[in-house]
Amino acid sequence: MADAAPQRAAGGPEPRGGTIGDSEFDRDTAVTPRSPGEYGAELSGNWSVLGAVNGGYLLAVAARALGDALPHRDPFTITAHYLTASRPGPAVIRTERVRAGRTLSTGTASLLQYDEGGAEVERIRLLASYGDLDALGPDVGTLAKPPTLPPPERCVGPDDMPEEWAAFESTMAQRLWAKADPATLGWVRGAPSGRAETRAWMALADGRAPDPLSLLLAVDTLPPTAFDLGHQGWVPTVELTVHVRARPVPGPLRVAIRTLNPAGGYLEEDAEVWDSADRLVAQSRQLARMER
Amino acid sequence: MADAAPQRAAGGPEPRGGTIGDSEFDRDTAVTPRSPGEYGAELSGNWSVLGAVNGGYLLAVAARALGDALPHRDPFTITAHYLTASRPGPAVIRTERVRAGRTLSTGTASLLQYDEGGAEVERIRLLASYGDLDALGPDVGTLAKPPTLPPPERCVGPDDMPEEWAAFESTMAQRLWAKADPATLGWVRGAPSGRAETRAWMALADGRAPDPLSLLLAVDTLPPTAFDLGHQGWVPTVELTVHVRARPVPGPLRVAIRTLNPAGGYLEEDAEVWDSADRLVAQSRQLARMER
Repeated sequence: MADAAPQRAAGGPEPRGGTIGDSEFDRDTAVTPRSPGEYGAELSGNWSVLGAVNGGYLLAVAARALGDALPHRDPFTITAHYLTASRPGPAVIRTERVRAGRTLSTGTASLLQYDEGGAEVERIRLLASYGDLDALGPDVGTLAKPPTLPPPERCVGPDDMPEEWAAFESTMAQRLWAKADPATLGWVRGAPSGRAETRAWMALADGRAPDPLSLLLAVDTLPPTAFDLGHQGWVPTVELTVHVRARPVPGPLRVAIRTLNPAGGYLEEDAEVWDSADRLVAQSRQLARMER
Repeated sequence: MADAAPQRAAGGPEPRGGTIGDSEFDRDTAVTPRSPGEYGAELSGNWSVLGAVNGGYLLAVAARALGDALPHRDPFTITAHYLTASRPGPAVIRTERVRAGRTLSTGTASLLQYDEGGAEVERIRLLASYGDLDALGPDVGTLAKPPTLPPPERCVGPDDMPEEWAAFESTMAQRLWAKADPATLGWVRGAPSGRAETRAWMALADGRAPDPLSLLLAVDTLPPTAFDLGHQGWVPTVELTVHVRARPVPGPLRVAIRTLNPAGGYLEEDAEVWDSADRLVAQSRQLARMER
């Protein structure tokens, strides 16, 4: 991954044939209808950090099932509460249609796995409203500015990390082309800035273009902002809400995450995702717990 | 209300005997257990704007039922999807316990009313995790700064609005002591600033102190930021998520709302709520639709 970027400047990773519908991400988020509203899935071990299945990946799997179950396809606003730790392996997603309107549909989804005795254990619960991004008006009055960050060849990715981070095992890092602004990574070398911000270029490593489902992944893939505050423990997500505001154009995304309110052992983490046409395509906020 | 403020400076409204548990807000959000997990309520006409029942008030009613149904009392993160327009009158709230953990419990709630034929119509659906705010650690590392706004006697409330706004009928305005920074209200006199920000002092008009439930109201009571962008239509909420981060101390709140991404006929509206001890006690984000 580190080799590909300099040759392509801001063009993202060297394409490896990943296209929407036929890529690592599409295969690993596939869901199979079993009965009305119920889907089977196989959670992949490809999207894990230190053995923990990534929350954005889980959200994308459940969101894909819910998008199939509802009359509208695109998640406009989707909330997940994380209940128990998921593991690679079989899962079932049960959806409920709450309301089907003309422009928006609302539904819920539960993603469940099985304990040793075969009993169902719920992993995440979703509540979401879906619509049709292609039906939105052309008005764009965005007041925010895209994050400023150096070109990818002057940013750093998983392969550029110091030796001591080699133990930070992440299969997800191999699925992503991620290049973070070194100014936001002081904590990696023991000098957290206290600003609780990270900015990075982001794409799927096989060159698959972004779409609304992959945006659900993108908001939850950077290292926790808590690390930039000197926090050293895990930061599990309690709840994550994503607004998908436009269908991203092909090309690398820019993701900026930020925290303003670490307090009482919890923090919020906000993400903005910008596409290569300078469009703010997704906004997210999560509540996470700072574990010691 | 306008008379009360100058005498009390930043001290909030003249107390009229409202206390937590015995106030307009408490009476109007009361829920009555009917069967396990099911509650009856009477939606009040006291919290409406142009006949529409306020979304924050509705959220507080449903959240109160869910807090009774779950083993934890305080909403930590609560999401509501607004399905159909509520009307003053009887309602039923059905709750489901999704998971009861040691520090957090997760549940759902549906608030329903009845159509002319007596059939149930769902108004809002909730997904939330509750905890115990008093059990949180003492660490406060908030990076945000409280909103700067003039003292209440130099701010403007509903009674200070120009004649032409008298038609903007709001029973809720009488329940709130709200004093907005005039610098954020240019749109009232036909000169929207384009900044999509409003800052205001906020309290319940009867002097009842804020608590986690009234914070759910506070995030959704200011005029829509879209008005500061020159938008003139209604701005119905699709989804609202509130993080309650600390139990507020008595005294007036400061509420700041802001929008960064009006596009495609939708916008996000973020709110910060600060208590009189300069603590960021709630953060919220909603997705709303800009109707023409």
